[in-house]
Amino acid sequence: MDALIHLSSTTIFTDCSSSSSSSSTACLLHFTTTKFPNTISRFNLQFGISNPKFPKTIITHCSSSSATAIQVDNETAATVIDGKRVAKDIREEVAVEISRMKDEIGIVPGLAVILVGDRKDSATYVRNKKKACDTVGINSYEVRFPEDSSEEEVLKHISKFNDDPSVHGILVQLPLPSHMNEQNILNAVCIEKDVDGFHPLNIGRLAMRGREPLFVPCTPKGCIELLHRYDIPIKGKRAVVIGRSNIVGMPAALLLQREDATVSIVHSRTKNPEEITRQADIIISAVGQPNMVRGNWVKPGAVLIDVGINPVEDPESPRGYRLVGDICYEEASKVASAITPVPGGVGPMTIAMLLSNTLLSAKRLHNFR
Amino acid sequence: MDALIHLSSTTIFTDCSSSSSSSSTACLLHFTTTKFPNTISRFNLQFGISNPKFPKTIITHCSSSSATAIQVDNETAATVIDGKRVAKDIREEVAVEISRMKDEIGIVPGLAVILVGDRKDSATYVRNKKKACDTVGINSYEVRFPEDSSEEEVLKHISKFNDDPSVHGILVQLPLPSHMNEQNILNAVCIEKDVDGFHPLNIGRLAMRGREPLFVPCTPKGCIELLHRYDIPIKGKRAVVIGRSNIVGMPAALLLQREDATVSIVHSRTKNPEEITRQADIIISAVGQPNMVRGNWVKPGAVLIDVGINPVEDPESPRGYRLVGDICYEEASKVASAITPVPGGVGPMTIAMLLSNTLLSAKRLHNFR
Repeated sequence: MDALIHLSSTTIFTDCSSSSSSSSTACLLHFTTTKFPNTISRFNLQFGISNPKFPKTIITHCSSSSATAIQVDNETAATVIDGKRVAKDIREEVAVEISRMKDEIGIVPGLAVILVGDRKDSATYVRNKKKACDTVGINSYEVRFPEDSSEEEVLKHISKFNDDPSVHGILVQLPLPSHMNEQNILNAVCIEKDVDGFHPLNIGRLAMRGREPLFVPCTPKGCIELLHRYDIPIKGKRAVVIGRSNIVGMPAALLLQREDATVSIVHSRTKNPEEITRQADIIISAVGQPNMVRGNWVKPGAVLIDVGINPVEDPESPRGYRLVGDICYEEASKVASAITPVPGGVGPMTIAMLLSNTLLSAKRLHNFR
Repeated sequence: MDALIHLSSTTIFTDCSSSSSSSSTACLLHFTTTKFPNTISRFNLQFGISNPKFPKTIITHCSSSSATAIQVDNETAATVIDGKRVAKDIREEVAVEISRMKDEIGIVPGLAVILVGDRKDSATYVRNKKKACDTVGINSYEVRFPEDSSEEEVLKHISKFNDDPSVHGILVQLPLPSHMNEQNILNAVCIEKDVDGFHPLNIGRLAMRGREPLFVPCTPKGCIELLHRYDIPIKGKRAVVIGRSNIVGMPAALLLQREDATVSIVHSRTKNPEEITRQADIIISAVGQPNMVRGNWVKPGAVLIDVGINPVEDPESPRGYRLVGDICYEEASKVASAITPVPGGVGPMTIAMLLSNTLLSAKRLHNFR
């Protein structure tokens, strides 16, 4: 489940300015897991990027001087989709609604988070969620279990939260220790409080026309929200989703289809993915492969939503690494009409959507409009 | 819900041999609902083709002399995928397993069918299911309710079948009378006996990697089974599904993706669908639009699975109509490497898969391998 494990066995390019494809042989460099602090893997875990199977080469730098076929006009730089600002707007909107709810019916939404084991990355992620809850006025309840707890103990606590009327959302921080059955534990969360939207019943409703899911998974919901807030039309557009994970790629494809896009899903078994992405008006990429989507993968004027948050080595950074997306920003931003940066694009939207889902749940459970 | 209602308000072409697109203005002819006997609509209902929104023109005849761009070599005619024969093979395999099950543990699978109202088409369809059950040795139980029955009465009977150990599959024949809530009634079937596979929990599991649905919806399962039985590779292939209905298009796309195809879904909002279908190695069409997919929509060598069963006027037929698919067989069979005919392609597979699902359910419920 840990992205670092993958990185350790991967050939990485630190610069590819002379290459137009990821199969270049320049600048080989081998990483080990110790290069990055343990907390980084949370970025990939957060987005379900657990086992990228795309090209075995990783590009840590891509330059506009690479031999792309597309002519780039520097005057047509893309709109930067500012996820940080949108997420802030959403948090403010959520805070206003929570305040109104409290005033009118005396109810404060509550989010319970269950953390098993002592992974530092998971602890950081839970702390960020708690902090975000605090800022908008959601009560957060955290339960920590030691690594060697039994599945039954965790299930017992989930059941308690299911019955607790002050809890409107329940999150189980992943990954769980290997001796626990993740599916059993996630299925135990009652669907009315499944603010992550990962329950198969929610996914089924998301897939079906005429049905409504109770919750939409946070990261793909955040991607679509960015398109909406930037007035980017979806209906009738060609959309390509890169990656088919349960928590980003697959639900993102279902959401785009619900909005009447014509959707194609590209994944590790796709031959010549760039031929498909080049037809897209909208690309959502969620594979966890640094700079995989080059400028010549993009149709001029396309809108690019980059879910990947990948650490790559950077000796110039004080931390020794920096974060890049799945999309080579430097190249693609000169071809696209709009693009999310990394960091500061989709990233901040996930927690904003979690807060929004928790509010939605409280409103529904208390029949508050 | 009735395909005939749609036909009655539609402009229909009886011949388009001189046209290369469905926008031709030749040979206009208006239909009324009385042209077809009432039983025909079951074909479309069976495949969920309730409201085709594709071009408002219907082509009842397409000829190879039409001005398609693709060169056709008469010597490279496509393999005809014989669904009738495959369905027969499957029924025989199911019968053998049922016999073995009866001998070894004394259990006979049972299928309950609920029919509300007195639509002739529904009655015919239920009769066909019963007949198919008889031929393989499945016990079938039929309950008929008058048109004006209450939802509660139907729900009560579903609940009875849910608890009945001799019933392993429960089917509610659609459409239901308009005063009943279809969603409530379908949701009442317990997931272990949902042999239609339409429950959102099943669909969710079908969409999710690492999860397994208890049942796969019969028609899309039949499409994939045809590909398997003809040794047509799916992994890594470009697949296009035309139509996104809950009971055919959407689950067909999910199934193809589970088999590692790169899937695109084309629907009524898709602009220039032929540009996308022309890239496909495999096309599954399920829209209920006669002859919509022309020869020049197809990549040479593609495999074509035609779910549409559309009645079109034919004065030469004793019944005054004949059945055609969504794909213009005459043109496409000269371009494709393999194609299902209509009738005799996907049609017979649906009931075969229903029998297979009922056997599967009985085996699972009795832990029989």
